[in-house]
Amino acid sequence: MSQVDLTIAELPFHLVADELERLRANTPLVHVLTNEVVQCFTANTLLAIGASPAMIVAEAEVADFAAIADALLINIGTVYPVRLQAMNLAIDAANAAATPWVLDPVAVGVLQYRRDAALAMLAKKPAAIRGNGSEILALAAALALNAEAIAGGKGVDSTMSSMSALSAAQQLARATGAIVAVTGATDYITDGEQTWAVPWGHPMMTRVVGTGCALSAVVAAFLADAPNRLNAVAAACAVMAIAGERAVECSDGPGTFVAPFLDALHVIHPVQLRSYSE
Amino acid sequence: MSQVDLTIAELPFHLVADELERLRANTPLVHVLTNEVVQCFTANTLLAIGASPAMIVAEAEVADFAAIADALLINIGTVYPVRLQAMNLAIDAANAAATPWVLDPVAVGVLQYRRDAALAMLAKKPAAIRGNGSEILALAAALALNAEAIAGGKGVDSTMSSMSALSAAQQLARATGAIVAVTGATDYITDGEQTWAVPWGHPMMTRVVGTGCALSAVVAAFLADAPNRLNAVAAACAVMAIAGERAVECSDGPGTFVAPFLDALHVIHPVQLRSYSE
Amino acid sequence: MSQVDLTIAELPFHLVADELERLRANTPLVHVLTNEVVQCFTANTLLAIGASPAMIVAEAEVADFAAIADALLINIGTVYPVRLQAMNLAIDAANAAATPWVLDPVAVGVLQYRRDAALAMLAKKPAAIRGNGSEILALAAALALNAEAIAGGKGVDSTMSSMSALSAAQQLARATGAIVAVTGATDYITDGEQTWAVPWGHPMMTRVVGTGCALSAVVAAFLADAPNRLNAVAAACAVMAIAGERAVECSDGPGTFVAPFLDALHVIHPVQLRSYSE
Repeated sequence: MSQVDLTIAELPFHLVADELERLRANTPLVHVLTNEVVQCFTANTLLAIGASPAMIVAEAEVADFAAIADALLINIGTVYPVRLQAMNLAIDAANAAATPWVLDPVAVGVLQYRRDAALAMLAKKPAAIRGNGSEILALAAALALNAEAIAGGKGVDSTMSSMSALSAAQQLARATGAIVAVTGATDYITDGEQTWAVPWGHPMMTRVVGTGCALSAVVAAFLADAPNRLNAVAAACAVMAIAGERAVECSDGPGTFVAPFLDALHVIHPVQLRSYSE
Repeated sequence: MSQVDLTIAELPFHLVADELERLRANTPLVHVLTNEVVQCFTANTLLAIGASPAMIVAEAEVADFAAIADALLINIGTVYPVRLQAMNLAIDAANAAATPWVLDPVAVGVLQYRRDAALAMLAKKPAAIRGNGSEILALAAALALNAEAIAGGKGVDSTMSSMSALSAAQQLARATGAIVAVTGATDYITDGEQTWAVPWGHPMMTRVVGTGCALSAVVAAFLADAPNRLNAVAAACAVMAIAGERAVECSDGPGTFVAPFLDALHVIHPVQLRSYSE
Repeated sequence: MSQVDLTIAELPFHLVADELERLRANTPLVHVLTNEVVQCFTANTLLAIGASPAMIVAEAEVADFAAIADALLINIGTVYPVRLQAMNLAIDAANAAATPWVLDPVAVGVLQYRRDAALAMLAKKPAAIRGNGSEILALAAALALNAEAIAGGKGVDSTMSSMSALSAAQQLARATGAIVAVTGATDYITDGEQTWAVPWGHPMMTRVVGTGCALSAVVAAFLADAPNRLNAVAAACAVMAIAGERAVECSDGPGTFVAPFLDALHVIHPVQLRSYSE
């Protein structure tokens, strides 16, 4: 492997502002094929941020719809054969239309069936991959990219920090051509060379189901017609983390977190984000 | 086509009160076959208004259950072959038992598979059809009822106003015998001749997933044993719109909208509604 | 049948405290196979209480996952053939690994297909069964355990009180070897001889979809590595009921109930529970 210059820097707020302004102007139509648990929260998250979600799942429809959508999310959290086939049809149609698609490889380190499914998807070139430390390490290990032991992920929660998976994320990005976002206490977003760090957010977000899955949908929304995919994916992580911090301030626990989180996504404004840089 | 007298009037509050009183006394059992995204919100909406929801989906069970339910909702938002077959079995059983059923033709203008499915359902005579402007125009166009261009609906959100679809709604009602509710900034509910206007509600409701889908379930609840189906469907639209207005007053955005919306449905009282007329 | 000593006593708070302390130390991984309506609420409930939920549904994956999970929930609310087959594979794997599993027999009195499915599952020896009065009576009747007429359950809501099903619950427990929890205004938890009464909770919980289904998942979480299964199941019922009471105090209706309910589960503390006994 050739020598690469690996730089890490904190994502500047003005880039987040630029990307959010672009998303709000685009109101991208996001085709969502996600797990059974988080569909409602994912749809509400996309609506709150300013995107338009559509969950179209039939094999007879996914190809037609992926071709007219502005971005596609594939999340394998509750994947089973019929749905997997629909996902692959959607991916092929998205690729044919040059529509960016995102892979969220939920619990890919734990179960062989979905690992095989995810590896086959990787060969179809996602624009981005969003996972926790355990998931990104597991993908890198499955591709034999990384000598570190694969994580023994417990269920769908990460047992590995995002930092411990950073090197695997960079290798995965270089091997697949995808932007890789490995999320945790700090999120790292990399194209294999340049890496943005997003150090915001709050641990409470791990006690609410679907914050990671919804982030992957928001990544898809930001990737729609994005001139710079690294910045787009990083901005998605940043907006979700910032909204999470705000929501924690307005809540007493995981139950009261959700409503102000969606409100924060709805009101977060580029002008405000730019003021943070000053 | 024979000449018809098309009158439009604002729905009087006392009719909403009468219909709500009837629903609360009936506590109708509503058989819900809806999309994957909105099932929880739909169930909570029905519980809040005073109905009893049941999501029974197996082909082996839907016919037995539709026969004992008081009303049936069919929403094709995430339809696929197995579920479509279950929906048609449920419709046939509901028809055999003279149980009213509602069609929510989500995104019917966008995808051929569900348009074919919806047209086949229309031939089975729903008691009501509830859709946004784009959906009602698309159904009317598919039945060759309306010369206006079919709407280029963007995903599942309407790009057409309810007013622009009013004529199509009236034609659809006359052609199918269903009450047609075309919802938007103002909802229009028509039997093809008489039309009620429901001018309440708030745009915030379009930023929360499932408000339209849940309305269709509430339409089904109001149709149970309804002596006047036009009034029943209009009252469903009115109650949801009024609860939406109240919830917006108690909320800061789409996240904090949902909880007070359900509370408002729970406490809205016929006596209070009657006082609005005075 | 031999004479049995049937005692009923109110569950002491110190046992609830002990069980909750054990659960929090274990952070059990709960494999959840539940109905389509309540998946998100169930996951958030388990996260709030301190467990780790995972919804793994594919036939290719359920056996592998049930073997590594600490407990398994089977809820037949929206069961259909493919999912039923996955449930049975998961149960077999859980049994092979001596992992406790819980059966929630939603609406088992109403529909033959699921009654047959539930009876077949009973033969596989669940560690616990959690249902409302109508459901427990229906199971006992189906096993010809109880001469009382089976309940004419309306949809998925109970039309029978928990007290009226207590005798059936005790017989069901003795016949199957499962702990049986029959829930209602007062919950009764029995191994067929000893019975704990849990008289807390609030009727508002019946106007929010999924409180019973989520309780069954919490029962599974408490059963993980439980030294005393009767106490574990009773503690699950108690914690949910206590959190429900607290949430009602902070809410104006069913909509505003959910968020403080999850917060209450998150903050409820063994030390506090022990202080109630004094």
